[in-house]
Amino acid sequence: MPVNPISRFPVPRLEALPADLRARIEEVQQKAGFVPNVFLALAHRPAEWRAFFAYHDALMEKEGGLSKAEREMIVVATSAANRCQYCVVAHGALVRIRSKNPLLADQVAVNYLKADLSARQKAMLDFALKVALEAATVSEADFAALRAQGFSDEDIWDIGAIAAFFALSNRLANLAAIRPNDEFYLMGRVPKAK
Amino acid sequence: MPVNPISRFPVPRLEALPADLRARIEEVQQKAGFVPNVFLALAHRPAEWRAFFAYHDALMEKEGGLSKAEREMIVVATSAANRCQYCVVAHGALVRIRSKNPLLADQVAVNYLKADLSARQKAMLDFALKVALEAATVSEADFAALRAQGFSDEDIWDIGAIAAFFALSNRLANLAAIRPNDEFYLMGRVPKAK
Amino acid sequence: MPVNPISRFPVPRLEALPADLRARIEEVQQKAGFVPNVFLALAHRPAEWRAFFAYHDALMEKEGGLSKAEREMIVVATSAANRCQYCVVAHGALVRIRSKNPLLADQVAVNYLKADLSARQKAMLDFALKVALEAATVSEADFAALRAQGFSDEDIWDIGAIAAFFALSNRLANLAAIRPNDEFYLMGRVPKAK
Amino acid sequence: MPVNPISRFPVPRLEALPADLRARIEEVQQKAGFVPNVFLALAHRPAEWRAFFAYHDALMEKEGGLSKAEREMIVVATSAANRCQYCVVAHGALVRIRSKNPLLADQVAVNYLKADLSARQKAMLDFALKVALEAATVSEADFAALRAQGFSDEDIWDIGAIAAFFALSNRLANLAAIRPNDEFYLMGRVPKAK
Amino acid sequence: MPVNPISRFPVPRLEALPADLRARIEEVQQKAGFVPNVFLALAHRPAEWRAFFAYHDALMEKEGGLSKAEREMIVVATSAANRCQYCVVAHGALVRIRSKNPLLADQVAVNYLKADLSARQKAMLDFALKVALEAATVSEADFAALRAQGFSDEDIWDIGAIAAFFALSNRLANLAAIRPNDEFYLMGRVPKAK
Amino acid sequence: MPVNPISRFPVPRLEALPADLRARIEEVQQKAGFVPNVFLALAHRPAEWRAFFAYHDALMEKEGGLSKAEREMIVVATSAANRCQYCVVAHGALVRIRSKNPLLADQVAVNYLKADLSARQKAMLDFALKVALEAATVSEADFAALRAQGFSDEDIWDIGAIAAFFALSNRLANLAAIRPNDEFYLMGRVPKAK
Repeated sequence: MPVNPISRFPVPRLEALPADLRARIEEVQQKAGFVPNVFLALAHRPAEWRAFFAYHDALMEKEGGLSKAEREMIVVATSAANRCQYCVVAHGALVRIRSKNPLLADQVAVNYLKADLSARQKAMLDFALKVALEAATVSEADFAALRAQGFSDEDIWDIGAIAAFFALSNRLANLAAIRPNDEFYLMGRVPKAK
Repeated sequence: MPVNPISRFPVPRLEALPADLRARIEEVQQKAGFVPNVFLALAHRPAEWRAFFAYHDALMEKEGGLSKAEREMIVVATSAANRCQYCVVAHGALVRIRSKNPLLADQVAVNYLKADLSARQKAMLDFALKVALEAATVSEADFAALRAQGFSDEDIWDIGAIAAFFALSNRLANLAAIRPNDEFYLMGRVPKAK
Repeated sequence: MPVNPISRFPVPRLEALPADLRARIEEVQQKAGFVPNVFLALAHRPAEWRAFFAYHDALMEKEGGLSKAEREMIVVATSAANRCQYCVVAHGALVRIRSKNPLLADQVAVNYLKADLSARQKAMLDFALKVALEAATVSEADFAALRAQGFSDEDIWDIGAIAAFFALSNRLANLAAIRPNDEFYLMGRVPKAK
Repeated sequence: MPVNPISRFPVPRLEALPADLRARIEEVQQKAGFVPNVFLALAHRPAEWRAFFAYHDALMEKEGGLSKAEREMIVVATSAANRCQYCVVAHGALVRIRSKNPLLADQVAVNYLKADLSARQKAMLDFALKVALEAATVSEADFAALRAQGFSDEDIWDIGAIAAFFALSNRLANLAAIRPNDEFYLMGRVPKAK
Repeated sequence: MPVNPISRFPVPRLEALPADLRARIEEVQQKAGFVPNVFLALAHRPAEWRAFFAYHDALMEKEGGLSKAEREMIVVATSAANRCQYCVVAHGALVRIRSKNPLLADQVAVNYLKADLSARQKAMLDFALKVALEAATVSEADFAALRAQGFSDEDIWDIGAIAAFFALSNRLANLAAIRPNDEFYLMGRVPKAK
Repeated sequence: MPVNPISRFPVPRLEALPADLRARIEEVQQKAGFVPNVFLALAHRPAEWRAFFAYHDALMEKEGGLSKAEREMIVVATSAANRCQYCVVAHGALVRIRSKNPLLADQVAVNYLKADLSARQKAMLDFALKVALEAATVSEADFAALRAQGFSDEDIWDIGAIAAFFALSNRLANLAAIRPNDEFYLMGRVPKAK
């Protein structure tokens, strides 16, 4: 069976990259044991790469009312709606690891309404999908539904902004047909494997 | 985190089932090591159960121009379009086992257009999704495209009929919210695990 | 003007069919005065034929909280949404005959919301169409709305399962372009004609 | 079973109407044997009524490259897409009468792609539905496809303008929930009945 | 850059038109300072032209519960949903002039939910868009929501009928690709320009 | 008539902002004569603000095969599809200014297919909208169509990345309901006004 390449566009060699990109990529490689393909595929454009990961980290690494597992659930649910292979597979691994639940990522990717989630988490994903798919109709009633589940306005910004950022990310990955690394598929599924 | 039940409807105990259902279920259990929940959830209605599995076997266990792995790919691609958690998870395991490729099921579930597939297999899934989502517009041009890839008219019936049967199956599973067994998620991912 | 054939696939002659298929078909012919084309078009695949009609009868011929006319309304409403010519025309005849109302089938086919139906029947069709078109979003709220109209959980299974079975049936008929028999169009429209 | 009223809005008595409306309505009644409900339901607004029927007649009663039966097919196909009960039932009767084919209206209403039509007539309905459902994307390529079937530019205007006029008509009938007269359902189905 | 013509169809010269069309067009020219292209493009068919403008005036020039600015808002909101360049640009000018608000037309065209409108006006546009886009589902609940905002049943007819009339108008303009006059773009934007 | 606020979320005062944000904002204010609201509304989150504008500038201020006017056309066309009031109004001003064409922005916002554009520019917008609305289906055929119009692969990345970035931007603006400044509406419409 054929195996697709990493990207439709040229993928720079690590050694050819600006020092700051290389440093960050080597750090990730150290931690994960491999270089996730998105780091290489987007490096085709260093200025865009820097903005992309700065934005990503500002949203995904911060503290706040949403746990890191919940932030990753937003990514998986909205990326599945956008049919983005890279993001569903890569962030599915992060959902499994951060939630310590090997089933949750696949459940959320197919149909979060039937996943093992709390009512609060389903409300979070209802809103994330509304921002992802029909942001023009977001209304005060949506904010009220989230506040009723205990979310603060800062949390609502986070939910919406993560959905918005991955609207960008999913489109880039689909544009370039970025291939998820083989390593992601098994991460977080086998307890001791980590 | 909450764990959803097997079905929204009553699930009969194995011992309470008619003998023929019990025999088949025990056979499956023997082979798989567990009873897939769909066998129990549909047993609520024995006459429908018998027709359902007779139909399933007539389409999925037969010989012909499509390999068993390809038949399961049709199931995963159309069930993902219908957002059917049970079918994507359970038949995803079968895609992995039958194709001996641990990555393919997740790729097909998210976006078969970007999966590691041949042009022939993509044409097969193009047609399966057309039957699943807009069968009213199936036309002679669709048949011509499949014949150009080497499919016979019997193969075309198979592709269309599998997509049609899982249109039924996906709706039943979503109606009853049938939960995929935990065992499916890891099947076919770890080489030696089988 | 051109006249379309019965099926895109080969249609077996009655004499060439397995005895059980022939027996059932001759029985139908006896009763209806003609052989509905679906019996011949699907006979191309005897094993699938047997499962198909066994499933059909299990859902459509049983007793329960839904009248036979109501079961046929579900077929017409969902088949119209799927633009299935065979099912709308053939089961439209059955709606007219079983409801003894010559107008109802056409009303339901075009827009059941404006048909001469009770609130209970409209709720039944609301749910049938949800299962037909977006089963992934069926929720507890839908079950509650049906229970409020007096439907039992067994009735709800019936409504959903009929919609699911005709999701299959509509796709097969559209795949093979099965032609409705000319006889169906007038059945149940003229009081004495029967 | 309940029977819906003629309109959601007040329906004037014939005697209360302006003389020109009454004259036209009595003429129709003479010819058809009954007053089609749309004549009464829209009479609530005499100025709009006059413009509506003037427009209707300018498009539907003229000579040209399209036969009267073909004009009515456009009405049925687009009105079915808009789920307009009044127009599908009333103009379905006209399709049957003008084409002298008792099957065609129901075929076109459910799925014109599978109706007993010529390639030229299907191209006509392809364009009519494009105007009805996504006129913003009409392009030179659509004009070329119609010219290739022998349609003149005047014919193309007719096809498009009929689809456009019934976009208005369907919305009015759905707004007011105008009920089709019982008489329409059987018209043109029984050879001698006329 | 290329400049598109006024219409895909022949545009008659003013002198070649029937006297009544010419009189009306000259009157408009007097008042506006130019001839809006729709008057010329539709004159290709004088009988249709007469009905079109009679209908238009019956709906748009009448007195009633809706102000003239509000009638024009309905046109802009529904024409934007139908992506009709002529109607959005030409009636956008009328919204600006009649509301004496230079911002409102652009706001309504992009997303009326976020325009500077009252709750009553948003309810009016909610209903207009429902008639424009899914009239088949208009229900008693929609009427109740409008009555709760103080609209009479005559107002509801007006809202629905304007949306329905511009469903026709938008399709004609998209069929013929009628070009908005350059003059419209600036009208009502600069206080003293008038 | 009501006037909507600048954002649903708190808008920081300029003096309260980090020095780098303040410097950039004052620079923009100097140049434009006012502070575009998006600079203030997003300043609620300085780290996200920095990444957002770095990304924006990397895509919109660079040299390459697309003119600056063409980059802004992509923004207007995709933002209109996403119904983002802020982006259509603000970047519409930039289209007018950079193309020196006072009509083009409104044409592109309503229906770029009927705007005064070259075939090359329409192909560019076809692709931009595909990335904006259904990026999962981007295929080699789309790349071939763009190359046939003379676009390089770097240009294709630019088109796709701008569409992707404004997928993010539109969702943020719709999430926060960011109000376009009144100044934008008239910019580039009156020749000498600049």
